[in-house]
Amino acid sequence: MFSPNTYYERRKDLADFVSKGLIVLLGNDYSSMNYKDNYYPVFRQDSSFLYYIGLDKPGLVAVLDAESGECFLFGNEPTLDSMVWTGPEEGLIELGQKTAISQVLPIDLLGEFIKMTKSADREVHYLPPYRPEHVIKLSSLLKKGQREINAGVSLTLIQAIIHQRSIKSKEEIQELDKAADLSAQMHLHAMRTARPGMLESELMAQVQAIPVAVDSHPSFPIILTVHGEILHNHHYHNRLDEGKLLLLDCGAEASSHYAGDMTRTFPVSGFFTQQQKEIYQIVVDASDQVVFNMGPGVSYMDMHKLASRTIVEGLKAVGIMKGDAEEAVEAGAHALFFPHGLGHMLGLDVHDMENLGEDFVGYNDEIKRSSQFGLKSLRLGKDLQAGNAITVEPGIYFIPGLIDKWSSEGKLQEFINYPALHAYRSFGGIRLEDDYVITDSGSRLLGTPVARTIEEVEEIRAQAIS
Amino acid sequence: MFSPNTYYERRKDLADFVSKGLIVLLGNDYSSMNYKDNYYPVFRQDSSFLYYIGLDKPGLVAVLDAESGECFLFGNEPTLDSMVWTGPEEGLIELGQKTAISQVLPIDLLGEFIKMTKSADREVHYLPPYRPEHVIKLSSLLKKGQREINAGVSLTLIQAIIHQRSIKSKEEIQELDKAADLSAQMHLHAMRTARPGMLESELMAQVQAIPVAVDSHPSFPIILTVHGEILHNHHYHNRLDEGKLLLLDCGAEASSHYAGDMTRTFPVSGFFTQQQKEIYQIVVDASDQVVFNMGPGVSYMDMHKLASRTIVEGLKAVGIMKGDAEEAVEAGAHALFFPHGLGHMLGLDVHDMENLGEDFVGYNDEIKRSSQFGLKSLRLGKDLQAGNAITVEPGIYFIPGLIDKWSSEGKLQEFINYPALHAYRSFGGIRLEDDYVITDSGSRLLGTPVARTIEEVEEIRAQAIS
Repeated sequence: MFSPNTYYERRKDLADFVSKGLIVLLGNDYSSMNYKDNYYPVFRQDSSFLYYIGLDKPGLVAVLDAESGECFLFGNEPTLDSMVWTGPEEGLIELGQKTAISQVLPIDLLGEFIKMTKSADREVHYLPPYRPEHVIKLSSLLKKGQREINAGVSLTLIQAIIHQRSIKSKEEIQELDKAADLSAQMHLHAMRTARPGMLESELMAQVQAIPVAVDSHPSFPIILTVHGEILHNHHYHNRLDEGKLLLLDCGAEASSHYAGDMTRTFPVSGFFTQQQKEIYQIVVDASDQVVFNMGPGVSYMDMHKLASRTIVEGLKAVGIMKGDAEEAVEAGAHALFFPHGLGHMLGLDVHDMENLGEDFVGYNDEIKRSSQFGLKSLRLGKDLQAGNAITVEPGIYFIPGLIDKWSSEGKLQEFINYPALHAYRSFGGIRLEDDYVITDSGSRLLGTPVARTIEEVEEIRAQAIS
Repeated sequence: MFSPNTYYERRKDLADFVSKGLIVLLGNDYSSMNYKDNYYPVFRQDSSFLYYIGLDKPGLVAVLDAESGECFLFGNEPTLDSMVWTGPEEGLIELGQKTAISQVLPIDLLGEFIKMTKSADREVHYLPPYRPEHVIKLSSLLKKGQREINAGVSLTLIQAIIHQRSIKSKEEIQELDKAADLSAQMHLHAMRTARPGMLESELMAQVQAIPVAVDSHPSFPIILTVHGEILHNHHYHNRLDEGKLLLLDCGAEASSHYAGDMTRTFPVSGFFTQQQKEIYQIVVDASDQVVFNMGPGVSYMDMHKLASRTIVEGLKAVGIMKGDAEEAVEAGAHALFFPHGLGHMLGLDVHDMENLGEDFVGYNDEIKRSSQFGLKSLRLGKDLQAGNAITVEPGIYFIPGLIDKWSSEGKLQEFINYPALHAYRSFGGIRLEDDYVITDSGSRLLGTPVARTIEEVEEIRAQAIS
């Protein structure tokens, strides 16, 4: 946790921005697996709750009066049973002290508290519910049906929070550096540990163990696959065969829950094949172009298109694409090979604030989301600002099902050399991803750099295999 | 998965037992962490869905007509987007074939299907919702409020399922053996790997990696602590100091999701102290007594009391307790040191069928749950039957907060020698747990035996440390 004053100041700014009514911040609960008391091992607090309250335990709700600025913490006091079963715990007063809240109340009184507010005809602001438990709680608190709850979210509150959380403070950036460092350790460990013949699951277990060993956890389900062409592949049953590329997309949370998110793709064997090298280098180039050009005031949509053009130029050089690169990108031809967005905001969430609404976070009245295949998956289109933390993650994939579909339709054949794709059918996919903070003059890599060029990666892999 | 016919036969028996109306079996979905698409890494299917349908993927619902015996599978077909993002998947027809269901329908039609059933005035049977998503789905399907949904669960369906799932078939017992074997590996690895000076989290990461490496996962959140006196301690921030006892309560799921659940307690140093040996041996004795005496027709409540008496006799011998052992147990004096139950049913859930209602699983009209501290936590009171799978897990704990409370009240001082407890204040806790199946003549240990006597444990630990 940061100092109590940090949370006090954040809440003050939030109350000023929202100005009227009551703000309800729901903390998260444990999530049950196969019966109520068998939880998923990791408790994950809601990120806005972490940002404004900082308390990392289940069963809490905070209510902030936007007019008076007063904040109330609702929760349960420890009991004899909880002491025996889960150990001694701090009471509500002690919890409140950590976050500069002096008014603490039993959670059973929350309903009455909200009822009084509503009868005084004051608006109750709440965020979009992304867990079913939120819908049930809000429905019960506000005496509204599920549909009304989903429709009644507060745009004012959403915008206020995005405004605050999009610009990271110095102490937040320190936490993002820590998260990136821990994420880097996962990647280095994988590069040093992967051996031909292993199962993906064996390597996955060792990669996951890195953050768990320091009492943290991955910031999202680990992608570790020799089928990198499946963008979010969460299976781990394949064998690491010689000649294949292994794609690892993973990151860790710092103890503060700020997230890291990195991707590396490396050869299972000690060295890349010539074909792999050629495609890999295009992805490096796309990333380098973006990093060289991005900074405050630069449109992230433009950066996505710059990466896409770099990919088209590269694929033209190896004979897979043809025609004018800019026209190819405008037509969406690159999306056969690069069907996702260049990156996203990063913070307390790995896709930062995605629960508040992707389009509110990444777009605005001027810059609208495209509906074109590929570009529609770009999470961030807005101009960058100093203090934004983002990922840069271009990739090239050969997806047999998608190639077959486009090819059979003769889709955009003026830009795509379909016959040349036969030689790449079992190539897989390559993605490279790093985390950056936008500075006043450009950008800075978060955390320790991890081997990324062909030479750097081959050096580690050749040592590991030998 | 078992053969399609296994599921067909199980559903036939279920339909016969319930005899009237429609049975809705809700499959589980992914559970969101901090935004909708950031799931907990492990998808856990509902166990009754696994038992009757066997399909281990999210987004499915099965409806069984208790009168005709017909079964319908509702789900979504794969899309182009799902192929690109999460890979090629089987369609509903192929899924249905794996479980002998020929009638497959888009999930969007489920509401209409249920509406027709209700308008025909047929009862809709469903199980108690243990995830908030279940409440929301049932509420929407049956057009009822949350409270009505919780009140409207089908006792007939609950009893039918408990009747079937309580007696394990030969093929289920094979899966329980596999789960126990994998759980045993976790324990052996911990005994061989733990070193003084390590953090609990470092060892935890390595223990968790054992099932993850074979594409499985722990069956419940791992308890790994030098504070074994906290029964369900899920913190891992302490250091393994010389002289302390480390309590590890963990298990793995087999790929079929049958669960293992074992506990071992071992010295961080190579050897137990004399004080630790004395208490440890009492727990071994309690376990041995139960295993020697349990079998079909034997009351598990009696086994709990037998273990409790053995603990009292042992604690009398070291001067901690006094008076008549049977009277002490009836008065609940042992519960200061053994405040939990002897064990529970085991199966597709680690506390098998706990979501159906603990009292339905473990008690009946004749054998009611006690309200006495300690005994009230016994999950299983009924007579054992051949085919039951259960845990046996006695323990002795020195819980400072509880000792202080009882001592200050002078509670049951005719049985407890409070002054003698000073020497045990920082002892921690010991629990030993193994999994058994009840046979026609007695019981059989599930899985490979793991070091358990003082000599066996010291042998492994002394080797590990040296």
